[in-house]
Amino acid sequence: MPLRFELLSTAASGARRARIHLPHRIVETPVFMPVGTQGTVKAVPQNILEDLGAQIILGNTYHLYLRPGHELIRSLGGLHKFISWPRAMLTDSGGFQVFSLSKLRKLTEQGVEFRSHLDGSKHMFSPEHSMNVQIALGADICMAFDECTEYPADEARAAESLRYTMAWAARSLTHFRAHQHLVPWHNEFNGQTQSLFGIVQGGMYPHLRRESAQRLVEMNFDGYAIGGLSVGEPRDLTREVIAEVLPLLPKDKPRYVMGVGFPDEIVEYARMGVDMMDCVIPTRAARHGLLFTSEGRMNIKNRQFADDPNPPDSQCSCPTCSRYSRAYLRHLMQTGEPLGGTLNSIHNLAFYLNTMATLHSQLDEPTTTEHALANPLTR
Amino acid sequence: MPLRFELLSTAASGARRARIHLPHRIVETPVFMPVGTQGTVKAVPQNILEDLGAQIILGNTYHLYLRPGHELIRSLGGLHKFISWPRAMLTDSGGFQVFSLSKLRKLTEQGVEFRSHLDGSKHMFSPEHSMNVQIALGADICMAFDECTEYPADEARAAESLRYTMAWAARSLTHFRAHQHLVPWHNEFNGQTQSLFGIVQGGMYPHLRRESAQRLVEMNFDGYAIGGLSVGEPRDLTREVIAEVLPLLPKDKPRYVMGVGFPDEIVEYARMGVDMMDCVIPTRAARHGLLFTSEGRMNIKNRQFADDPNPPDSQCSCPTCSRYSRAYLRHLMQTGEPLGGTLNSIHNLAFYLNTMATLHSQLDEPTTTEHALANPLTR
Repeated sequence: MPLRFELLSTAASGARRARIHLPHRIVETPVFMPVGTQGTVKAVPQNILEDLGAQIILGNTYHLYLRPGHELIRSLGGLHKFISWPRAMLTDSGGFQVFSLSKLRKLTEQGVEFRSHLDGSKHMFSPEHSMNVQIALGADICMAFDECTEYPADEARAAESLRYTMAWAARSLTHFRAHQHLVPWHNEFNGQTQSLFGIVQGGMYPHLRRESAQRLVEMNFDGYAIGGLSVGEPRDLTREVIAEVLPLLPKDKPRYVMGVGFPDEIVEYARMGVDMMDCVIPTRAARHGLLFTSEGRMNIKNRQFADDPNPPDSQCSCPTCSRYSRAYLRHLMQTGEPLGGTLNSIHNLAFYLNTMATLHSQLDEPTTTEHALANPLTR
Repeated sequence: MPLRFELLSTAASGARRARIHLPHRIVETPVFMPVGTQGTVKAVPQNILEDLGAQIILGNTYHLYLRPGHELIRSLGGLHKFISWPRAMLTDSGGFQVFSLSKLRKLTEQGVEFRSHLDGSKHMFSPEHSMNVQIALGADICMAFDECTEYPADEARAAESLRYTMAWAARSLTHFRAHQHLVPWHNEFNGQTQSLFGIVQGGMYPHLRRESAQRLVEMNFDGYAIGGLSVGEPRDLTREVIAEVLPLLPKDKPRYVMGVGFPDEIVEYARMGVDMMDCVIPTRAARHGLLFTSEGRMNIKNRQFADDPNPPDSQCSCPTCSRYSRAYLRHLMQTGEPLGGTLNSIHNLAFYLNTMATLHSQLDEPTTTEHALANPLTR
């Protein structure tokens, strides 16, 4: 039995409050999912992620396949056990990383041949192989193997790319259904199984996006993602693609926009009716000293913070803001101390997760429409 | 009023159980002090240090003087407030780092002129300046400005170096007494003040060490350190110097051996009657994947741990061993993930601190002599 999507309410804006019942967690949506590329949300210990209220985190199939290898993770009971994360997880398909990280890609009907960015070794990802890897990793949600269309791409190229993605989606689904009993935690959750999401592609071409969405919906996935965004396109275009696709997706399944975004983006897309989002921005920005606060963005490395005894965000009660000053965080960045990346990441993740929690409260109020315009970023 | 040293018991081996009453903490000894060079014990958040039972940590005067600067730290209330560490702290004199890190040192009676290892800028450390910096930082314990004699050094060189250290010790004490009211937390602790320790030098020459100890004791410091060890000499020699010096130091004041050591060393020296030790080994080794366990040293990067589901140390209940496997820690090291350094450091610090706690229990038992030979490393 795949996920159960429990829709609690839909606001006038389109925003949905829902619960996704997954084997390892009932996830309250709209949800932001921290990214744990190599089986760790960079620089943040798992217990702190729990304390911050992270419900579901991502693992990257491409990275984990290369190191330490999916068979090793399977032999240790799957990714949850391997990294000691008891809550929900999602793995991507590997398609985006093959596209963005690997060398000498060769695309065929069969799949993608590529060389590892680590050691140049030769590998092949096909829909079937991606499913095998994701089943071995054992995340609660897997993603169909897709080709992420680059930006810009002309229409012919986007259509050709979409042709691969659609054929691979069907093969992913078939292989997944036939092999999903091989998940390391098979039968541990009262018959609950992994779920598989299809990924809408089609570049920035509305008719390709529509075609993609309609065909995926016909295939009957457990949820639907909009991929191929945040690849360099202007934000207006991101919004247009999301607005175009969302109405075509079934109301009774989760909708996931991959790889977005800044805090104001995740609020905007949640209001449009997106249920799930993930992004490396909070942690990557943190490691470079960029903090998101209730007063906007703050480059903690700036000289003005050298003697500032205030917490990064006076409205925030995260472990970083409760204990440390801007002056100290700046000092840690200036001296290249690893604690800087950790404390900054904790704050940024808290900011994202608290933003979603505030959004939940707003959507849970009976007079949702009235409150729909309150900005959860300046709570 | 400087520290009060409350001697609880002395074992047949010479080992002492005591309490050092400091403004920010009553420290139970023998104590191991984690090193927080730049105002952070590398990669470990302060609340975890508290949870692990760290009672007192070090800050490095040389580093903090260069970045962010002692006047800035003074203006923010001192080092405790700056880094949010409410327990005890000790700062070194800067002498060792000037010796080991800086460029183009020029030694005069006045002090040491040197160029920063960061940007080549020119600086001067004198006994008076070291005291000013340490008073501004406001640690509970300060160290007299010394010249760390290199190893090997011939007798003439060691004697010459000692001449500086002795003259500087007297000047340190005079300046410290005259200016210690300038500490940022003056009058906050019922009249308790910073304390100043003298540092015994003299290279590996027993008669120079004896001379150094006797003259420092005459100056009447609040405690005494043995410096100039762990500079490359064989361990037998380290032990000999400690054995030579300890009997010359007053029984009613703390004795501190600087910069040691491996777990078996800290146990050995504690048994000889050393009250305080500090070392970067637990954290530095951790960042390179070397773990100290009840079964000995473990290089977690070794291939044999790739699929090992066991905790690093089955006898350890630290946050790392309670949650994570050897396989996961190895993966974090293999992939260069910052969480690896953090989790390894947490375990190694726990191992050191638990070793001292076990030693306390042994020394607290009425039949101390009988238990004195039990090895706290294999509890």
